[in-house]
Amino acid sequence: MASPLKITLFFSIFAIFLVSPITSKTHPLDSLTPSEFLLVRAIVTQSYPPSHHKLTFQYVGLEEPEKPLVKSWLLKPSSNPPPRQALVVIRLNHQTRELIVDLSKRSIVSDRLYGGSGYPLLTIEEQEAAANLPLKHEPFLESIKRRGLNISEVVCSTQTIGWYGELKTKRELKVTCYYLNGTINMYLRPIQGITIVADIEEMKISEYTERDVPPLPKAAGTDYRASTITPPFGPRFNAAPPTPSGQRGFKFDGNVVSWANWKFHLGFDARVGPVISLASFYDADKKKHRQVMYRSFISELFVPYQDPTEEWYHVTFFDCGEFGFGIYAVSLEPLNDCPSNAVFVDGYYAGQDGKPVRVPDVMCVFERHSGDVMWRHTEAEIPNQKIREVRPDISLVVRMVSTVGNYDYVLDCEFKPSGSIKFAVGLTGVLEVKAVPYTHTDQIREEIYGTLIADNTIGVSHDHFVTYHLDLDIDGDTNSFMKTHLITKPVSDKKIPRKSYWNVEHEIVKTESDAKIQIGLDPVELLVVNPNKKTKLGNKVGYRLVPGSVASPLLATDDYPQTRGAFTNYNVWVTPYNKSEKWAGGRYVDQSRGDDTLAVWTEKNRNIENRDIVVWYTMGFHHVPCQEDFPMMPTLSGGFELKPTNFFEYSPVLKTLPPQHLNWPDCTK
Amino acid sequence: MASPLKITLFFSIFAIFLVSPITSKTHPLDSLTPSEFLLVRAIVTQSYPPSHHKLTFQYVGLEEPEKPLVKSWLLKPSSNPPPRQALVVIRLNHQTRELIVDLSKRSIVSDRLYGGSGYPLLTIEEQEAAANLPLKHEPFLESIKRRGLNISEVVCSTQTIGWYGELKTKRELKVTCYYLNGTINMYLRPIQGITIVADIEEMKISEYTERDVPPLPKAAGTDYRASTITPPFGPRFNAAPPTPSGQRGFKFDGNVVSWANWKFHLGFDARVGPVISLASFYDADKKKHRQVMYRSFISELFVPYQDPTEEWYHVTFFDCGEFGFGIYAVSLEPLNDCPSNAVFVDGYYAGQDGKPVRVPDVMCVFERHSGDVMWRHTEAEIPNQKIREVRPDISLVVRMVSTVGNYDYVLDCEFKPSGSIKFAVGLTGVLEVKAVPYTHTDQIREEIYGTLIADNTIGVSHDHFVTYHLDLDIDGDTNSFMKTHLITKPVSDKKIPRKSYWNVEHEIVKTESDAKIQIGLDPVELLVVNPNKKTKLGNKVGYRLVPGSVASPLLATDDYPQTRGAFTNYNVWVTPYNKSEKWAGGRYVDQSRGDDTLAVWTEKNRNIENRDIVVWYTMGFHHVPCQEDFPMMPTLSGGFELKPTNFFEYSPVLKTLPPQHLNWPDCTK
Repeated sequence: MASPLKITLFFSIFAIFLVSPITSKTHPLDSLTPSEFLLVRAIVTQSYPPSHHKLTFQYVGLEEPEKPLVKSWLLKPSSNPPPRQALVVIRLNHQTRELIVDLSKRSIVSDRLYGGSGYPLLTIEEQEAAANLPLKHEPFLESIKRRGLNISEVVCSTQTIGWYGELKTKRELKVTCYYLNGTINMYLRPIQGITIVADIEEMKISEYTERDVPPLPKAAGTDYRASTITPPFGPRFNAAPPTPSGQRGFKFDGNVVSWANWKFHLGFDARVGPVISLASFYDADKKKHRQVMYRSFISELFVPYQDPTEEWYHVTFFDCGEFGFGIYAVSLEPLNDCPSNAVFVDGYYAGQDGKPVRVPDVMCVFERHSGDVMWRHTEAEIPNQKIREVRPDISLVVRMVSTVGNYDYVLDCEFKPSGSIKFAVGLTGVLEVKAVPYTHTDQIREEIYGTLIADNTIGVSHDHFVTYHLDLDIDGDTNSFMKTHLITKPVSDKKIPRKSYWNVEHEIVKTESDAKIQIGLDPVELLVVNPNKKTKLGNKVGYRLVPGSVASPLLATDDYPQTRGAFTNYNVWVTPYNKSEKWAGGRYVDQSRGDDTLAVWTEKNRNIENRDIVVWYTMGFHHVPCQEDFPMMPTLSGGFELKPTNFFEYSPVLKTLPPQHLNWPDCTK
Repeated sequence: MASPLKITLFFSIFAIFLVSPITSKTHPLDSLTPSEFLLVRAIVTQSYPPSHHKLTFQYVGLEEPEKPLVKSWLLKPSSNPPPRQALVVIRLNHQTRELIVDLSKRSIVSDRLYGGSGYPLLTIEEQEAAANLPLKHEPFLESIKRRGLNISEVVCSTQTIGWYGELKTKRELKVTCYYLNGTINMYLRPIQGITIVADIEEMKISEYTERDVPPLPKAAGTDYRASTITPPFGPRFNAAPPTPSGQRGFKFDGNVVSWANWKFHLGFDARVGPVISLASFYDADKKKHRQVMYRSFISELFVPYQDPTEEWYHVTFFDCGEFGFGIYAVSLEPLNDCPSNAVFVDGYYAGQDGKPVRVPDVMCVFERHSGDVMWRHTEAEIPNQKIREVRPDISLVVRMVSTVGNYDYVLDCEFKPSGSIKFAVGLTGVLEVKAVPYTHTDQIREEIYGTLIADNTIGVSHDHFVTYHLDLDIDGDTNSFMKTHLITKPVSDKKIPRKSYWNVEHEIVKTESDAKIQIGLDPVELLVVNPNKKTKLGNKVGYRLVPGSVASPLLATDDYPQTRGAFTNYNVWVTPYNKSEKWAGGRYVDQSRGDDTLAVWTEKNRNIENRDIVVWYTMGFHHVPCQEDFPMMPTLSGGFELKPTNFFEYSPVLKTLPPQHLNWPDCTK
């Protein structure tokens, strides 16, 4: 373990800050601290004493201050920050209420009954309670016995049920059960043929049907722990070289990270996980920090499975809005999840009782030495001169991992000295599988909706659509969205024997409908520009969205899951900034009806020119499972980039000095 | 500098091997050694004594042995390898001849006059000679004087002229000149308004036209050397942590590299640069090395510029076939081009006189610790169990950099423990620019064919199309190409409220024409499968081509450059293996007429089912320059992946043990 001292030292500083009372050091965008969660809880329970009410906290998070207030505070950080407020969603006596709690006034400043469709984020506690219901449900116990299984080896888990046109809904979950007995990889041993629905308001089983008894996949070969695997082992690899002591390269001031020319605020939210705010780049020539991104986070993650049979058709998860990427964030393992030079930070969210739950080491920040080249040139054409200049690449990574049941999502945000910000998602963990009687493809005479990846095991085909909320403020908050079309043209000059070339045509997009883009063969570059700022040469100051991992949904547009996930109908959308439009799938996603999505908001076709705008980008993966994904998926990665394009007058890494390389110490000398 | 001892030691071993006589240790796919180059030269000059002939060596490289010979040698490496032969292309008395030289027989076994269109690879020497012609050409000297410039600060360079329908052609180059005077970044100071054509057979200027005198861009701000740049400097970054001594993780046996489960042969060729052969993966369960890739290299790189005016329309380079990626490969800088754990190898090519030219440190091989996660899972749902297993990612990178004039191409081939092979190209170096009178976009009233990136400087728009020759042999050499279509289907079961899902349909592609693919919105996965091998479960053993950095050409299909570059018309092509079809743009690319390209070969529409097949993949970039690219481009990267898909029975990294982490030594203790 490299430099545990450093890490501990950092933690203690951070911990002191976190538990200290709200001071002038609080940044307006800081996530709620443990003491603030306790204060929120105290204020809410004062109005709604649990002794008189059935009260659960479904979501507690920072109620973002108005953007202008944050911006004016930034100009004078010694001034009082905007009032600290929390957005609180509670279930109170079987109804959803939305509260705004003011922490300085110590009062509820807004209290609204929510009467629309859909339900709030689920709590861990109610899911655990629902998952335990079958274990005391007589028909289930009998079935387990009939199947010759041992109930003490059964573990159940919950799934959201989606919405399929029902006029009336209840807060219900489906419960699926798995068998351990010889493995800890429960997901690969589904106990199938049973449908169990739990009413989570009454916390009882509301529906129980057993249809058939498919075979139970074997435990053998499913365990993935180093302590249990059997030969032949894979190769043992060298560890990454440890970082020289004291070498971090970045610093935290509260939750503001400074590294190289970058400065940004790091937050953590129960619903969306990591939140990067106020990313700015210090322009050494202009001698100032220039704004790039006001706020970014993963707004929603839609994962529709492609098995339309009774036990599976509902499996169409919305991981942020239903489960919470922050709630399911896991503690990172030093040296393996993040390298030896990483600094780890804790995260907090409110439990069902409103008390803060600590997730130790929930995010890490580290310098990445990828081994790539930042820039280089060898000049061989000038007589008698040997010129070679090379700069190795380096970047700063912010990482969080959210493990929503079987899948582990490695979420990275990477800052580059060139001014680029890269977002990446790595998908690993365990596949969601279906038990079948088959042990060879030759036996299969029906549609199987996936791939036979092990005996009696179908890895069910599915998609992952990760939708980012990117509130870019390119050198100020009034921006435009620009399409740079690459257009083939004929050569008009008859003296020229060439027939064609391409040139660019810039289109400033006026309204939301023209900013809905399916990325495909069309040669176009997508940019956010500041129409009020130009470089000395007159080019529009901008950032380009460089797509990657593009996939479009394949469900019918009018199918229920796709109506709810309609925000994935396009890879790119642009909206005018609206504080309430944060979650692309809507505020209440569990059993949502698709009436509060990005697709609905943009029907207004608002003006987006020369305004504060938000870009929504969806990274997509179609996942046809393969045997290599069993029993543990090698990480599948995708990403995209925000790249400065005429934002700087010249290369911002030109004047990067070569690093001073160290030797591996030789203590014998 | 980390471990110079290790590097030196390795070099000396390698060097001994390279200069040793041909022994039974020679691998049939080894690149020609210096002594072999000398032997080839001796054999050729014996037949064509330079005293009696005008003789230049345009290309000398390994004439690959027939594939079956190599494969049978592999089964018994103690047997005699197939005869060592060289393919030699010479210009002899102003004609192109193609020779096969047998090194064991010490004789020319085939000698053919080439009468078709196009010319062979250019030599460095003839380009240098042509580039020096203007410096003694009176009209040019007068022009330089008239422009008030100093001839001693002028450096000229050559460009290929392309082909624009001429019935008769000569071996000619265009010569473009640049002005240093205050910079070493010559490309950013083009002396424009002059067209100079050099006849390189007569080695004289055959055409000289001065049209106008555009302004010369300034030297200020163009130099990129750390020794000359002026404040404000960029941030100084931490170097990558140095590698503990002795920690390489891979070994060379001759030119065969072994790392983890991978084994492959590494070659170097004047035309295409790095050649990876016989990549196989040791399957610990099957207890054998399984074939994946017989041979891969960059077959051609097409770079059409998009300025159709007199001085620029011809600028449509084919970097492999005209200039040679290996000939222009540069020595890598330890620690900056490749990290401290890299091992460097030298490369050799034949100079114009046939003698070997050594490029020290032309390739490097290193373990990459990217900071990514190979796989992980946290299991939180099993009561009373804390389970977390994480494996950090590691890979092996083979790197070469080719600097063809202004552009530096960083070519990576990366092997992953998961069985994936990733190919990546990083583009950096200096833009090709055009001098213009403008210093602000407001002054521009005409089409400028690019972006104003500095005063008087247009970064001209262009494309890069990198076409890979991928001779995959998936678990044997008879393979098929398979499209896995993702197809939306309606739900037929009326009891199910969901309306749609997608499922896969596999299509084995029969002929070349059905394997021509433009990658776009169509949801399809592309695989090479071995139809004769199945997993225990019955899935077809295969590898998937996962595209990345896709771009399609925008020139008119019947335009001359596009006819010559017609191999880029599709992103993917599949052909039956044919030893002579190595270079997608044809054998003689300089002034080629497009009659010998991949697009022409595939017109035969040959059968590709259950045969030895070759996949051709084109990575593309449309490059609209921006100010950040001045004066030195931050690396722009792209890549694609070959990913095992039902090749293994289960995850090949499941049984990878966690690495043993080291501490940074504390010598005070």
